[in-house]
Amino acid sequence: MSREKVVSLSVGSGGKQMQDFIEEIIHTKFSNDILLQSSDSAILDISHGIESGKLAFTTDSFIVQPEFFTGGDIGKLSICGTVNDLAVSGAVPKYISLSLIIPEGYKYDNLERVLTSIQQEVFKSGVKIVTGDTKVMPIGTLDSILINTAGIGEIVKDLTKFSNISLGDNVIVTSDIARHSMAIMLARDEFGFVGDIETDSASLNKMMESVYGYDIKFARDATRGGLSTVLNEIASKIDFGIEIHEDRIPIRKDVESLCKTLGFDPLSLANEGVIVLIVSRRDTNKVIEVLHSNEYGKEASVIGEVSTCKNVVLNTFIGGRRYVEVPHGEILPRIC
Amino acid sequence: MSREKVVSLSVGSGGKQMQDFIEEIIHTKFSNDILLQSSDSAILDISHGIESGKLAFTTDSFIVQPEFFTGGDIGKLSICGTVNDLAVSGAVPKYISLSLIIPEGYKYDNLERVLTSIQQEVFKSGVKIVTGDTKVMPIGTLDSILINTAGIGEIVKDLTKFSNISLGDNVIVTSDIARHSMAIMLARDEFGFVGDIETDSASLNKMMESVYGYDIKFARDATRGGLSTVLNEIASKIDFGIEIHEDRIPIRKDVESLCKTLGFDPLSLANEGVIVLIVSRRDTNKVIEVLHSNEYGKEASVIGEVSTCKNVVLNTFIGGRRYVEVPHGEILPRIC
Repeated sequence: MSREKVVSLSVGSGGKQMQDFIEEIIHTKFSNDILLQSSDSAILDISHGIESGKLAFTTDSFIVQPEFFTGGDIGKLSICGTVNDLAVSGAVPKYISLSLIIPEGYKYDNLERVLTSIQQEVFKSGVKIVTGDTKVMPIGTLDSILINTAGIGEIVKDLTKFSNISLGDNVIVTSDIARHSMAIMLARDEFGFVGDIETDSASLNKMMESVYGYDIKFARDATRGGLSTVLNEIASKIDFGIEIHEDRIPIRKDVESLCKTLGFDPLSLANEGVIVLIVSRRDTNKVIEVLHSNEYGKEASVIGEVSTCKNVVLNTFIGGRRYVEVPHGEILPRIC
Repeated sequence: MSREKVVSLSVGSGGKQMQDFIEEIIHTKFSNDILLQSSDSAILDISHGIESGKLAFTTDSFIVQPEFFTGGDIGKLSICGTVNDLAVSGAVPKYISLSLIIPEGYKYDNLERVLTSIQQEVFKSGVKIVTGDTKVMPIGTLDSILINTAGIGEIVKDLTKFSNISLGDNVIVTSDIARHSMAIMLARDEFGFVGDIETDSASLNKMMESVYGYDIKFARDATRGGLSTVLNEIASKIDFGIEIHEDRIPIRKDVESLCKTLGFDPLSLANEGVIVLIVSRRDTNKVIEVLHSNEYGKEASVIGEVSTCKNVVLNTFIGGRRYVEVPHGEILPRIC
């Protein structure tokens, strides 16, 4: 049996092995004009002009454990996460930086798998990786690969302003919740459960672009901290509250059961393919219609509205009313 | 004795503790209009126009061990490194993203120290931190804090094109070499040496801006892989070679002695405050004069020229000639 090829410290040292790694692996997988000409920085030509005069700029580090799970891996997440952060800001994602921090001894096969996922997602979302960095940490100092991406997009319509939100606006979630967290839990294999819950991780920029033409007031993806955190942040920044209805929150039966069994509140769990949209009443139906025609928006639902209540109020299945709290403590670590 | 405050997993979980961390620590330290309004992305207004029509975009992860050393720490490096990558591309650095990956149990005092360094360097270099991310890794999975920064700058003069380099151009280094690597070696305290070698880590954007007006053909900072790597990369991309002269390469006596004792080639060691400039003969003296008037360019020296030789040739002290090779293997790990 031949020894498996693994990543050595020299790949991160700045010398010959790093140059080879970048030329043979990174440049081959992510070939584009800008990347190939990149030296210390990528040069981005915006001389054709940015119509809105505004760029969106974001960053995210990915530390998920395990690195591979049903429907995705850390590589796919690292592109979708940054693409979605740009898309919910109202930007068309354009340029991505890719920074890898790899443990010494990491299997080349796994690295290949992660990089292939990145390549596929870059292609799907239509962004370009234009600059990057590779570091290797000595054995015993890091237990898994880490990825940071930063992204630049061209703002079409600024969706980050809480001040655009009005009383009576509707609250839409674009997909069923809590799937990503439960996919990770199953992949950890700590509880003896078997199932095929897939992460919802997906690049949602094309779906967002299809609704920019409507009266969307605000958007945010419900990642770490889940729906609870996003709704509470919105409520804390406006003069009104948000009222939501449990029976309208889309969640898959198997996901819901697993959450109940494990004692998690699905509202507080991380998603990687769920966006919260605040939409005027006038355009709500049209937006839902457009979302339903997208593969990632089939479960889109109007879950509530901006109301005169305080904070975030949940109307439960059984007719009760309770405040939705911002999660405290650890929730689930290393979920993204 | 009271227990020291340490970072808990919940700071990276997306819930209440993370919001508090961001508002109380990150927003307080790096307060600026854009950061405070950032949600998933920072919105950058470029409607006043980018004169050159070009932006520079770069990223770097910092994993240096130990985190604190003479003259700097991982926080200072994380700003200087990205600022310098933009500056050598010919850009005025503008916007920085800051992504922290913190081990659970990391002392708040150390985090405070790192963030204060970042704050000071951001102020010195004149950039703005406009977006960021915080993740916490569980105990036992990561042994030190990691920082990723990405940066956006406005290109004044594109200095990344090898094709601008001509036969006869001079090669300048802006400061004495190998100081950063030796500062880290001393801080590791593995060899029983005592000394006060300071890192050369500094934001060199203001110094670069002072020479953009001259006939600079190309620039690159000599970080990982050192001077050898930069010169060899240049030589490999042009039709000529580079000839350098050992007696003109600035190096501090104590740094040189330590390199000799430890068996390191100073040409292959990482710097954090040394830039290689390729400059036309006509403007060489003027550029040297301007560099000498800057606190980080006092040791600037014309170390050689673009010549008809092959690859990179070093004329040694004792009158010999040898090729300067790209370093192979590990060199020094976790140096930046």
